[in-house]
Amino acid sequence: MRCAIVYKSPEHLERVSGFLKKLGVDFNVFPKPTSELEEFDFIVSIGGDGTILSILQELKKCPPIFGINIGRIGILTHARIEDFEEKLEMAIKSFEIEKFPRLNCSCESGEFLALNEVALLGKERTKLIEARIVVDSEEIDSLRCDGIVVSTQIGSTAYAFSLGGPVVDPYLDSILIVPIAPFRFGSRAYVLRGDRVVEIKAKDSIAVIDGKRVVETSRVVLRKSNYPAVFFKRVDRFKNLFYTIRRIE
Amino acid sequence: MRCAIVYKSPEHLERVSGFLKKLGVDFNVFPKPTSELEEFDFIVSIGGDGTILSILQELKKCPPIFGINIGRIGILTHARIEDFEEKLEMAIKSFEIEKFPRLNCSCESGEFLALNEVALLGKERTKLIEARIVVDSEEIDSLRCDGIVVSTQIGSTAYAFSLGGPVVDPYLDSILIVPIAPFRFGSRAYVLRGDRVVEIKAKDSIAVIDGKRVVETSRVVLRKSNYPAVFFKRVDRFKNLFYTIRRIE
Amino acid sequence: MRCAIVYKSPEHLERVSGFLKKLGVDFNVFPKPTSELEEFDFIVSIGGDGTILSILQELKKCPPIFGINIGRIGILTHARIEDFEEKLEMAIKSFEIEKFPRLNCSCESGEFLALNEVALLGKERTKLIEARIVVDSEEIDSLRCDGIVVSTQIGSTAYAFSLGGPVVDPYLDSILIVPIAPFRFGSRAYVLRGDRVVEIKAKDSIAVIDGKRVVETSRVVLRKSNYPAVFFKRVDRFKNLFYTIRRIE
Amino acid sequence: MRCAIVYKSPEHLERVSGFLKKLGVDFNVFPKPTSELEEFDFIVSIGGDGTILSILQELKKCPPIFGINIGRIGILTHARIEDFEEKLEMAIKSFEIEKFPRLNCSCESGEFLALNEVALLGKERTKLIEARIVVDSEEIDSLRCDGIVVSTQIGSTAYAFSLGGPVVDPYLDSILIVPIAPFRFGSRAYVLRGDRVVEIKAKDSIAVIDGKRVVETSRVVLRKSNYPAVFFKRVDRFKNLFYTIRRIE
Repeated sequence: MRCAIVYKSPEHLERVSGFLKKLGVDFNVFPKPTSELEEFDFIVSIGGDGTILSILQELKKCPPIFGINIGRIGILTHARIEDFEEKLEMAIKSFEIEKFPRLNCSCESGEFLALNEVALLGKERTKLIEARIVVDSEEIDSLRCDGIVVSTQIGSTAYAFSLGGPVVDPYLDSILIVPIAPFRFGSRAYVLRGDRVVEIKAKDSIAVIDGKRVVETSRVVLRKSNYPAVFFKRVDRFKNLFYTIRRIE
Repeated sequence: MRCAIVYKSPEHLERVSGFLKKLGVDFNVFPKPTSELEEFDFIVSIGGDGTILSILQELKKCPPIFGINIGRIGILTHARIEDFEEKLEMAIKSFEIEKFPRLNCSCESGEFLALNEVALLGKERTKLIEARIVVDSEEIDSLRCDGIVVSTQIGSTAYAFSLGGPVVDPYLDSILIVPIAPFRFGSRAYVLRGDRVVEIKAKDSIAVIDGKRVVETSRVVLRKSNYPAVFFKRVDRFKNLFYTIRRIE
Repeated sequence: MRCAIVYKSPEHLERVSGFLKKLGVDFNVFPKPTSELEEFDFIVSIGGDGTILSILQELKKCPPIFGINIGRIGILTHARIEDFEEKLEMAIKSFEIEKFPRLNCSCESGEFLALNEVALLGKERTKLIEARIVVDSEEIDSLRCDGIVVSTQIGSTAYAFSLGGPVVDPYLDSILIVPIAPFRFGSRAYVLRGDRVVEIKAKDSIAVIDGKRVVETSRVVLRKSNYPAVFFKRVDRFKNLFYTIRRIE
Repeated sequence: MRCAIVYKSPEHLERVSGFLKKLGVDFNVFPKPTSELEEFDFIVSIGGDGTILSILQELKKCPPIFGINIGRIGILTHARIEDFEEKLEMAIKSFEIEKFPRLNCSCESGEFLALNEVALLGKERTKLIEARIVVDSEEIDSLRCDGIVVSTQIGSTAYAFSLGGPVVDPYLDSILIVPIAPFRFGSRAYVLRGDRVVEIKAKDSIAVIDGKRVVETSRVVLRKSNYPAVFFKRVDRFKNLFYTIRRIE
């Protein structure tokens, strides 16, 4: 069994690699995520949610990820660097995994995968966009705004959360649509079935994918990808999520 | 095939019954919903969403309902009184139906069914309740508030909507939890998978079921019922919903 | 100089009265607020914000109040029971006071004074009200909702806060209007100049004054009263407010 | 009496200039606002709110502005191009004016004036800023967010409105602080007395002034300017505002 270690800062690398050695696990170390990671049996990420999102940007087929949190919040991670050992050992032994859907984002510049969300924003910062929201070929809304976020249920606690959206059960297959700074009297988050196809049209826009990739576009089409993100199972994920989000400062 | 007509006001009864006669449909007329309605092949409701909710309070096994709207909004209805004829005729001929989950609400006073929501409120109007929210036996939140609404996806455009909750896809099996006037800095709507069991505990409370029934309680347990609400299919339900809610004045 | 002590529970009475004796201050003790309190030079309230609101319900002309908090939040209080002594002594010595406007609420049943807010609610709990909002004789909005809160700036951290309203500078003379559970797509808090006259009309309603008094009505007129609430000055009131409201759990 | 006409598009110029000729008013025409406008007795703006904001960017001392709306909303304008004549004539004859405070925005790059708002945003679009909010030298809040809007009461229906902020009485001298996409559980708009001094600190930021000017900064200080915006009086401004904002689509 071969493991890839990806780290954000080298500070904690020795502690993690030493522990894997003790467990008799072969590993390679990556200071930066690459598509080679697809070839490993599992991945240990030392960093925060951002590190995991960067790893996922490189992967279609996703080996199970175990996240060791060195930062503050860590919704996607499994353990803190202070005491990751027991949890990591159990994860490798049981090898229980869980998959979370990613959005396939198709636009003029190509296809991309998002675990959290795709944000369509105006290219110019001082101009509103006129966004049209189309679901399964039906236009359901159009509005002037700073942008539109289309998110998975996992992304409901990422950018969509900052926009006042609901917190969605990580195990409810669904797609959220949340406007950014809608210039009108009323506005709501929309929560759709996970198999809907969502299209957002807006001239002179950029699409930001998981906060990691920016492409120019005037139209994005989002649908559930065949390449989910794969994580080691976290038994307390559900309960812990509701606890964590109230403590974000 | 036997039809039951239930009406809110007798004003439009003749027009509807006359049309059913023309179609050769046998019918009985009910000025008030009763459990006898279970024995009919289908129900025509003349009124608004409230009339349909009153009908559903009387039914476990639910014959398909066709709603003729005589009021303003009508999210649950199929046609307006002004031009219901073609839609009703097509509904009866095709007999295509759709089912929407109801919540089974279990509390000290018995068991009840809700298509939209159960609202737990303080018994005294000037006192906050201390509500504890338990999902699948895990307490996920507790807060001081005027009350808590637990809603189906269909109910996301009813009371939960007034509380700022998201608009949920009518075809996404899910349960919403939305606090009423939470006395704290932050608050969110929670959207859960439809098979979760939600328990709300709060001393000195009343439970309001679909705005139609009020019972005293200190604890309600809500889970998806085996008795869904059954409606004639409405092809444009999805698109129309998003259109309608923006026009609520 | 004569002081009135009003207490919520007798538990801490001895500690407070003992300290006043030591300071050589004459006092009378009131287990319940009465209009006699108007005759005293100042009032010490042992309780929470609710105790102070109850006292204010009895007073037109208001002697300066010093609040000793025995509960949790205490936005209106000056000190905690654990260490009130120094602050109370300084308050009495300097006798610096500040005044905050109260709303005069005029309705069919008479006139009332509110430091925080007047909430107009439907008399029946399962029915929406149709509220019309009139400011300086101009109707500025009308909507279906559970109720309407009209609040002072001080009340912006009371019931209006639970409804998602803004936090208003305690020294900005202003009136807030915040709807309760508005059944429409959009809704906003309105913040008006403190000298506006606000009228809310809604059939079959009750008015709740500072959470302490309930009267039946169909129309309330609210204007700044000539009888402000008077408190001993709290130097850190402004900064402390913003700190406190984020910690409300 | 000399008038300056500023227009956004030349389409309606003839109609307006023809009418001024008929009234016997001398005028100069400006396809673009410049600081020369300060020398005129009054200004007629043909455009939308954006045109007026562009004019104000050029002015310290502000002659009274009359806005003729050729676009959709027009909160700052006085008449629509379809029927501006009577209102413009009356305005010139009575010459009744009203002044609205502007914010003086001081930062590393200089001093600027804003009628609506100053928005502090992250320089990089994919990174949150860590914003510290200081009022009268006291830090009242700090948070991670996309940005912070500091607005006048007039600006409460501009960018602050898109962020869910309250609608503020145009005649209530006040300053609003509204966060943009705050990444935490709770968040509120703050409404302060108009004479407060607000400082926002955030590394690697840009300040956007009235949506018209962008400067790099890491700290802005905002206080009421001595150079208000001056408009011809609009008698129905208050009532019309509440009507208009509900109709923004």
